[in-house]
Amino acid sequence: MNFKEKLLTAAHANKSWLCVGLDPDISQFPEKIGRDAGSILEFNGAVIEATSDLVCAYKPNAAFYEAWGARGWEILVETVKLVPKNIPVILDCKRGDIGNTARMYAASAFEAVGADAVTLSPYLGRDSLEPFLCYRDKGVFILCLTSNSSSADLQKKIVLIDEPPSVGAMTPQSKARTLAEFFNVSTVELYLYVARLARQWNEGDNIGLVVGATSPLQLEKVRKEAGQEMPILIPGVGAQGGDLESALENGSNGRGELAIINVARSIIYAGGVKEYPGGIRRAAERYRETIENILNKKKR
Amino acid sequence: MNFKEKLLTAAHANKSWLCVGLDPDISQFPEKIGRDAGSILEFNGAVIEATSDLVCAYKPNAAFYEAWGARGWEILVETVKLVPKNIPVILDCKRGDIGNTARMYAASAFEAVGADAVTLSPYLGRDSLEPFLCYRDKGVFILCLTSNSSSADLQKKIVLIDEPPSVGAMTPQSKARTLAEFFNVSTVELYLYVARLARQWNEGDNIGLVVGATSPLQLEKVRKEAGQEMPILIPGVGAQGGDLESALENGSNGRGELAIINVARSIIYAGGVKEYPGGIRRAAERYRETIENILNKKKR
Repeated sequence: MNFKEKLLTAAHANKSWLCVGLDPDISQFPEKIGRDAGSILEFNGAVIEATSDLVCAYKPNAAFYEAWGARGWEILVETVKLVPKNIPVILDCKRGDIGNTARMYAASAFEAVGADAVTLSPYLGRDSLEPFLCYRDKGVFILCLTSNSSSADLQKKIVLIDEPPSVGAMTPQSKARTLAEFFNVSTVELYLYVARLARQWNEGDNIGLVVGATSPLQLEKVRKEAGQEMPILIPGVGAQGGDLESALENGSNGRGELAIINVARSIIYAGGVKEYPGGIRRAAERYRETIENILNKKKR
Repeated sequence: MNFKEKLLTAAHANKSWLCVGLDPDISQFPEKIGRDAGSILEFNGAVIEATSDLVCAYKPNAAFYEAWGARGWEILVETVKLVPKNIPVILDCKRGDIGNTARMYAASAFEAVGADAVTLSPYLGRDSLEPFLCYRDKGVFILCLTSNSSSADLQKKIVLIDEPPSVGAMTPQSKARTLAEFFNVSTVELYLYVARLARQWNEGDNIGLVVGATSPLQLEKVRKEAGQEMPILIPGVGAQGGDLESALENGSNGRGELAIINVARSIIYAGGVKEYPGGIRRAAERYRETIENILNKKKR
């Protein structure tokens, strides 16, 4: 079973496109479980136990573990082991490096950590993804349009698909025609170009995209560019303020599938100290049900 | 003393713009020191001892340590401690994430690992760099044009600096004029746009760029765009085949400074098992001297 099959199987079994972000911040932990590195594993275990029948995936962000150094990497590995075998784990590590180095990151994520999928930056191009893609049963989510406010700095720059024609050799008439044709046909924003490349590179059916819920209109364009069969991982709902309904409307395919809604803080700290861990389950239930209702409405 | 001052001081003291890549691959290790995780620290120690008066910096790539999981992170921290205090350490981790997550990566690199500088991806834009840049005494090298063969996939795409004008409202004459002006003035390849942004963002004088030695002509353009005061980290000399002379000619500033030549495999495995560790020192001496000669020729 490859990553996409595992994802779809979990989503159907739990009737859920909710992904819970395992981003432990000890300052938010209930006092009774302690506030040191050792308490992270207990906390993650409680989150997983409270939600594993309500999700399609878990997404630990590597930074929250790396910040604890060597001990953090042990906790990450142990956390992944706590996830039931039928639920895929997406390691959000946003790596991207050249050939022999990318191979080491792939071995780290897929073998040492045991993740089912990773997030990667597209900036270094195709050969930086290959060492991950050659694990045919694993998944790769390429950063497309992120949920932070500076995402437009590069991701929304307009890129020329083809080289511009040499203008010196053209008549005024042909220049004018070229201008119109050129601007209408052959330009695209960088994030959409990344989506187009991702589709071209997806021979192994193991590529997905990351698009923030904070950009609902752009999400619709990405779904169109990526086609109906590519998973889109959507962070930014909840604490970051993205709208859940528009994210699902625009991000899911015609069958109401493959839009993976990631929620971290609004679930794992829900109810605060008082309701731990019952508040976590109730928040996950609410998200799962809201997502299901929106998707059912879309399918009708 | 901030990162750039530390770099310049080390470069002047050792008369060297050579940076040695600490990328330990146990399959290349001499048998006598063993071929397990435990032997990495011994090997790195031997490399550092053999070269610390010949370099301006060391650059461990995080992937080579992360591949060993928790133990690898311990070894990375211990390796950084072995570097003499006057030599800066650039942690090549190519991270890039949104706000609160980037803060954790910054704490990991600068506090837990103790690096003096990091490499970062520009894809998420300015706010993904801020948590690193706010460490005023540390450095940030932004990936600009990398040395891998797929770097052109995104990095050489032509981007429009300004929004294209609305062509519908224009006369044929103005369209033609706009076309010429537009193509001549307002387009730039993405990697050069990154260099331009880096210069704009460099208020704290703590930003550098990464440009592969495999692109000498582009390196010249980056130096022009980045100005005379920005360090450029140049990997790709040696095993990757980039030309040292053109890298220095095009990458250094008018004073023959701030082109940091990174060499890993061609130095740390030089001489093979037989000449370990003497071969390492001899290779570093050769590189240091060749670099000095080229820069002296340029200054004359």
